[in-house]
Amino acid sequence: MSIINVTNLNIEEQAKLAQKASRMLSTLSTSDKNDALLMIADMLEAKYEYILTENEKDLVQGRKKEYDQAYMDRLLLTKERIRDFANGLREVVTLNDPVGTILSEWTLENGLNVKEQRVALGVIGMIYEARPNVTVDATGLALKSGNAIVLKGGSSALYSNKAIVSVIHEALTKTNIPVDAVQFIASTDRRAIEQLFTLKKYIDVLIPRGGRSLIETVVEKATIPVLETGVGNVHMYIDKEANIDKALSIIINAKTDRPAVCNSLETLLIHRDWFSANQEAFITMIQENGITIHGDKEITQQIPDSIEATEQDWSDEYLSLDLALKLVDNVQEAINHIEIYGTKHSEAIITEDALIAEQFMQEVDAAAVYHNASTRFTDGSALGYGAEIGISTQKLHARGPMGLPALTTTKLTISGNGQIR
Amino acid sequence: MSIINVTNLNIEEQAKLAQKASRMLSTLSTSDKNDALLMIADMLEAKYEYILTENEKDLVQGRKKEYDQAYMDRLLLTKERIRDFANGLREVVTLNDPVGTILSEWTLENGLNVKEQRVALGVIGMIYEARPNVTVDATGLALKSGNAIVLKGGSSALYSNKAIVSVIHEALTKTNIPVDAVQFIASTDRRAIEQLFTLKKYIDVLIPRGGRSLIETVVEKATIPVLETGVGNVHMYIDKEANIDKALSIIINAKTDRPAVCNSLETLLIHRDWFSANQEAFITMIQENGITIHGDKEITQQIPDSIEATEQDWSDEYLSLDLALKLVDNVQEAINHIEIYGTKHSEAIITEDALIAEQFMQEVDAAAVYHNASTRFTDGSALGYGAEIGISTQKLHARGPMGLPALTTTKLTISGNGQIR
Repeated sequence: MSIINVTNLNIEEQAKLAQKASRMLSTLSTSDKNDALLMIADMLEAKYEYILTENEKDLVQGRKKEYDQAYMDRLLLTKERIRDFANGLREVVTLNDPVGTILSEWTLENGLNVKEQRVALGVIGMIYEARPNVTVDATGLALKSGNAIVLKGGSSALYSNKAIVSVIHEALTKTNIPVDAVQFIASTDRRAIEQLFTLKKYIDVLIPRGGRSLIETVVEKATIPVLETGVGNVHMYIDKEANIDKALSIIINAKTDRPAVCNSLETLLIHRDWFSANQEAFITMIQENGITIHGDKEITQQIPDSIEATEQDWSDEYLSLDLALKLVDNVQEAINHIEIYGTKHSEAIITEDALIAEQFMQEVDAAAVYHNASTRFTDGSALGYGAEIGISTQKLHARGPMGLPALTTTKLTISGNGQIR
Repeated sequence: MSIINVTNLNIEEQAKLAQKASRMLSTLSTSDKNDALLMIADMLEAKYEYILTENEKDLVQGRKKEYDQAYMDRLLLTKERIRDFANGLREVVTLNDPVGTILSEWTLENGLNVKEQRVALGVIGMIYEARPNVTVDATGLALKSGNAIVLKGGSSALYSNKAIVSVIHEALTKTNIPVDAVQFIASTDRRAIEQLFTLKKYIDVLIPRGGRSLIETVVEKATIPVLETGVGNVHMYIDKEANIDKALSIIINAKTDRPAVCNSLETLLIHRDWFSANQEAFITMIQENGITIHGDKEITQQIPDSIEATEQDWSDEYLSLDLALKLVDNVQEAINHIEIYGTKHSEAIITEDALIAEQFMQEVDAAAVYHNASTRFTDGSALGYGAEIGISTQKLHARGPMGLPALTTTKLTISGNGQIR
């Protein structure tokens, strides 16, 4: 098969080409963009064997480097996973195109007509780690919202990502979207990549997706605005008035359903009275679900097989079946703890007391605050946004799950007949 | 009079106090916030003599340093200017409070109720240059939108700003807003100030207002997200089908009404045919208005007293009666020029050809794009936003004039009765 080369240019040149393509892409019709996404979806399924062959090269490397099983699983592609990628793109096709929407329109006393419309951002720089699915998901969301994309995936998935991008490029040649709209950076030279973070002239936003250290590196080195995603040190406060059945089932779900994701529970703050009253049921629950509790002496003396917590435990995102636990005297102490250690992702309160719930919901500063529900719902598709490019934990531009509108900006178009000021 | 000390703490401590105050401020009622703004307004007027005395110290320093007249004028305070500050605050009182607005609300199939509401950002870091009015304007907008503010003004206005902040602090003691909600950084130590740019734990956004070098420094050194404001290399394209009267009056207005502001015209791109047809009237216009043209040989040979342009002229924000001029063959050449040299602030086309106008409006990438109107309208109050904290030239979060909503973020509050995923 003819694979379009994805490695020959330097990073600045690639960003420049992406910007040029973005100008054209920003004015394409929704159906042109949808056609392209469907073409990519079909081609990914058609060329799955090629992708799996290349993926195997990453797996061989990974085994040599003795990556752990969870990491290897994130790297692994299968025919079914590639079909899922394709179906993800087909789902993005069904989402509303945000570009061109008039958000508001007004006429000033002097007769000037002002329209605020949604427009594409331009060029999105996507920096991510092992999962090759991000290559497909991010490309689909970027193109649908009229943006070009510069992809920098983790080097452990280099062969897989290159293969996926070649297929995307081949598909684009059959559509109205220019191939240059999807740039893949194959370099693994750290300094070359850091250069990417400062190409403000060509790239409009950087979206890092991965662990805390990746995100912090991008924030520190970037002069391009960054949309931070994902680090979630998620708390749940079990109030004195918490219903025991709701509390236990929500804790189990939030901690064990998918421990490695950012909306999973990491620290439990339990009202002292509730803990005294429900200690036995609580201990049974954690034992049955294989949860390891980290807490201070007060906790370790009462909970078998628990581990004494250090200061670090309150900040850690375990991403495992470990769970920090602290007893508190009231909701205010819980709110204060969250203010110090929270990452402003998702926080929850379990209580039957409406007033206490309201206080918690209003005073806790986070993208999503829950009352009597699992924090696992902080997710674009679970909350009804459709596909998401990540979950923003920052306050500017977009907060929480970021769907297509988060990949747009606005433009004022002002029409007159000679007005001066 | 009793002036509350504004200088004793280190910057990190000040930011921490601001954050603490912001928690309280974010839940205050609109009337509490309005009362505080009115109190500040009254006190500024009442204590004008004290402020003028302190301002005089800055003026003495400024004269010693031989600042130019425009700079000295920006520094100068008068009784009338202080009254204008107070009236500006009274105007902010009349604006809608964005905090607490429910932007959308929906119920998922599983019964979870989701509300997206506007909440305050938290703590705003304001970095600005000579104008002491920013101290008042930014404080008013920050407090009204439920935010604390950390102010770092230019050292040339240090006495004036300190005096204004003391009066603000004194006023706040009589209101429900904590004094700590307004922090003023009196240090002029560059490294101490750069520390401010990285206090991500306490400050939610930095807004630099001033010249290009100030803004670039903040963007480069900051790890806190930055809302960039203000640099406007504004273009106007005079199409072949431009009406001569509209064109000339709009050029005069956009260039000469207030040359030192960011929405003033800096580069004129004129269709070659229009220029040939209207050369005489054009030259008369620039001569009568004291405009100095910078252009290539083709221009300097035709326009008396014009200056030969260098590459730098196409990027410069003159902020004076200088005007770069380039002849072009068509709208596409104009659009391409703007793409290379524009700062995405305000761009305009003058033409009676609706199709050409539409192409320009859609293809030019800027916060505000005008058809047959002066770019001087890019301004919060001229466009009907009310007061503004600056004009964003970036694409994330807020673009164009930033009013109160730009100083807020959103929060999802999700209520259930035990839902798990």
